[in-house]
Amino acid sequence: MACDNRRMPVPLKNDTFLRACLRQSTDYTPLWLMRQAGRYLPEYRATRAKAGSFMGLATNTDYATEVTLQPLERYPLDAAILFSDILTVPDAMGLGLTFAQGEGPKFAQVVRDEAAVAKLAVPDMDRLRYVFDAVTSIRRALDGRVPLIGFSGSPWTLACYMVEGGGSDDYRQVKTLAYSRPDLMHRILAVNADAVAAYLNAQIDAGAQAVMIFDSWGGVLADGAFQQFSLDYTRRVLAGVKKEHEGVRIPRIVFTKGGGLWLEEMAGLDCDALGVDWTVNLGRARALVGHSKALQGNLDPNVLFAGPAQIEAEVRRTLESFGRPHAGAGTGPTHVFNLGHGISQHTPPESVTALVEAVHSHSRRLRA
Amino acid sequence: MACDNRRMPVPLKNDTFLRACLRQSTDYTPLWLMRQAGRYLPEYRATRAKAGSFMGLATNTDYATEVTLQPLERYPLDAAILFSDILTVPDAMGLGLTFAQGEGPKFAQVVRDEAAVAKLAVPDMDRLRYVFDAVTSIRRALDGRVPLIGFSGSPWTLACYMVEGGGSDDYRQVKTLAYSRPDLMHRILAVNADAVAAYLNAQIDAGAQAVMIFDSWGGVLADGAFQQFSLDYTRRVLAGVKKEHEGVRIPRIVFTKGGGLWLEEMAGLDCDALGVDWTVNLGRARALVGHSKALQGNLDPNVLFAGPAQIEAEVRRTLESFGRPHAGAGTGPTHVFNLGHGISQHTPPESVTALVEAVHSHSRRLRA
Repeated sequence: MACDNRRMPVPLKNDTFLRACLRQSTDYTPLWLMRQAGRYLPEYRATRAKAGSFMGLATNTDYATEVTLQPLERYPLDAAILFSDILTVPDAMGLGLTFAQGEGPKFAQVVRDEAAVAKLAVPDMDRLRYVFDAVTSIRRALDGRVPLIGFSGSPWTLACYMVEGGGSDDYRQVKTLAYSRPDLMHRILAVNADAVAAYLNAQIDAGAQAVMIFDSWGGVLADGAFQQFSLDYTRRVLAGVKKEHEGVRIPRIVFTKGGGLWLEEMAGLDCDALGVDWTVNLGRARALVGHSKALQGNLDPNVLFAGPAQIEAEVRRTLESFGRPHAGAGTGPTHVFNLGHGISQHTPPESVTALVEAVHSHSRRLRA
Repeated sequence: MACDNRRMPVPLKNDTFLRACLRQSTDYTPLWLMRQAGRYLPEYRATRAKAGSFMGLATNTDYATEVTLQPLERYPLDAAILFSDILTVPDAMGLGLTFAQGEGPKFAQVVRDEAAVAKLAVPDMDRLRYVFDAVTSIRRALDGRVPLIGFSGSPWTLACYMVEGGGSDDYRQVKTLAYSRPDLMHRILAVNADAVAAYLNAQIDAGAQAVMIFDSWGGVLADGAFQQFSLDYTRRVLAGVKKEHEGVRIPRIVFTKGGGLWLEEMAGLDCDALGVDWTVNLGRARALVGHSKALQGNLDPNVLFAGPAQIEAEVRRTLESFGRPHAGAGTGPTHVFNLGHGISQHTPPESVTALVEAVHSHSRRLRA
């Protein structure tokens, strides 16, 4: 029966990641990598070639399952993350998402005026069925090896692409709208927030064991504008996303790239963990937010272009900047190792071997 | 006689900018704009068309003088900044700087291996004579209206372009070198630092009344790497740059874009003012560094795409986030208004009119 694994969950063989997200002690520091199922893996490129396009890959349950599991076959990572894109929600709103070869995402429709904003609505979640089917299929394929993370872009990050129509290096269109017509921007963000909450809840219902909000472009906002256009709507998403499913806690992670200056304010979010990029000092971040949140991050992905000795040294430095994590019963400061951004497509796969080995072995020593 | 104005300086009619840099009281908050002589001005585009290319413009004394003064004809700005590029120093090292139409800077030679690094040396300052001639000519043309700011890229920012060969969105090459061959990176940075110090001193000798180090890409570095590869070499530049010229103080400004997380460490630099981008809260920054440095910044350039009422509101918010500046004798916290990055080429010139008027009038009211 297709969906039965939701009713008869397989016990997790490795719950290190979930425990660390919930600030419980673990024997070592768990790790996973943003974009761990991606172009740096030859097996990913082979599946992608079969699928024909990025969206062809993401919308096909079998392919999405296959690529999600690929990095776990190579490396003893502590979590899987759904293979999908942060922009599926605006695509489901009818904006027409495509990925041209070698370029970033593009939307067929841009949202820049009153008429376009008026048309926006929380999409029927049935239009995202392919995502929930992938979650259920991946969960079954994982068979309890490691937990599965679901995700979405943040309301602000979705808005950046919806208004710009694609990537940007100055965010001129979206900021022009925010500064000149804040009423329209707030309307976009409210729709996005409600859509993202419904979307994450449906991923949880389908089997996601943790969820992460990628506020990839929160860091481009000015102080003041960040709180108003990004943080407030991340808060609105969190207010709508379930904290547990069938009696099991579902950790909620928020990652604002470039958000290091606002960590004290982010510490007030009702989530379990905060992702931080490489500009942040983990020790300082722990002092600011450590008593309320786990921290996730934050190696510069470019470290993976150096040799194994340098990778090991940088891993050690990162683990030590966080310091000794919580040990024993109850909760306390914990660290989930990750990169500070998605892994580069140019990364040599053997660098990841060195990284995973260094994180696991050195973090055990750190606890000894 | 061509260079006599260095020996017989015209008294400044408006020294508000210099006073604020030195933490002395002023009647209002002075302002200038990064890239104020630039493509958003039709008169700039006309001169640029005559010059044929960006470097044709920058290397011609008359054109460089003309475009430097253009924004001052339109707006009552409180400082002029030399029209030039942050990359003139590596060009003088023989790397071959060009600007293709609509693209960023490109170097003919990249510096990525031992052999290329070994060839680097502080260039003969005679190869930068066109810059010093422009400084002297602009100073004469200004005739004491406002002070003239000289500048250079920081050692790390120069290294980014020298290693990448141009702009980058991931800084993969320069970071790969930094992580895998720190010895080579330190050698590049040491040469750059000594070259930048000599270059700024020569600008001061030619007539620059303040100097600014643009660490445009310091913010892409990881915590730890920033201190090692950017901050240490900015410190080395400052150690080599004169603090006064013919008995007159020469304020030294350091701007690390994306450097807000390291302000406490930057407060230890031997300079007079720190530039900050729009992600920084000026009140918080003042609390961290206010007793040792003036602050310069930090409006998001995209505010200038909104209408005059919104521009005025954002200006007021920015001035008020800094708070009341020092008044009376002696020194204390001061603010130089600026954008948090260069003005966009798409900016409507009338937005700058609204900006300047709002800064001058509201900052007077703030002192009342």
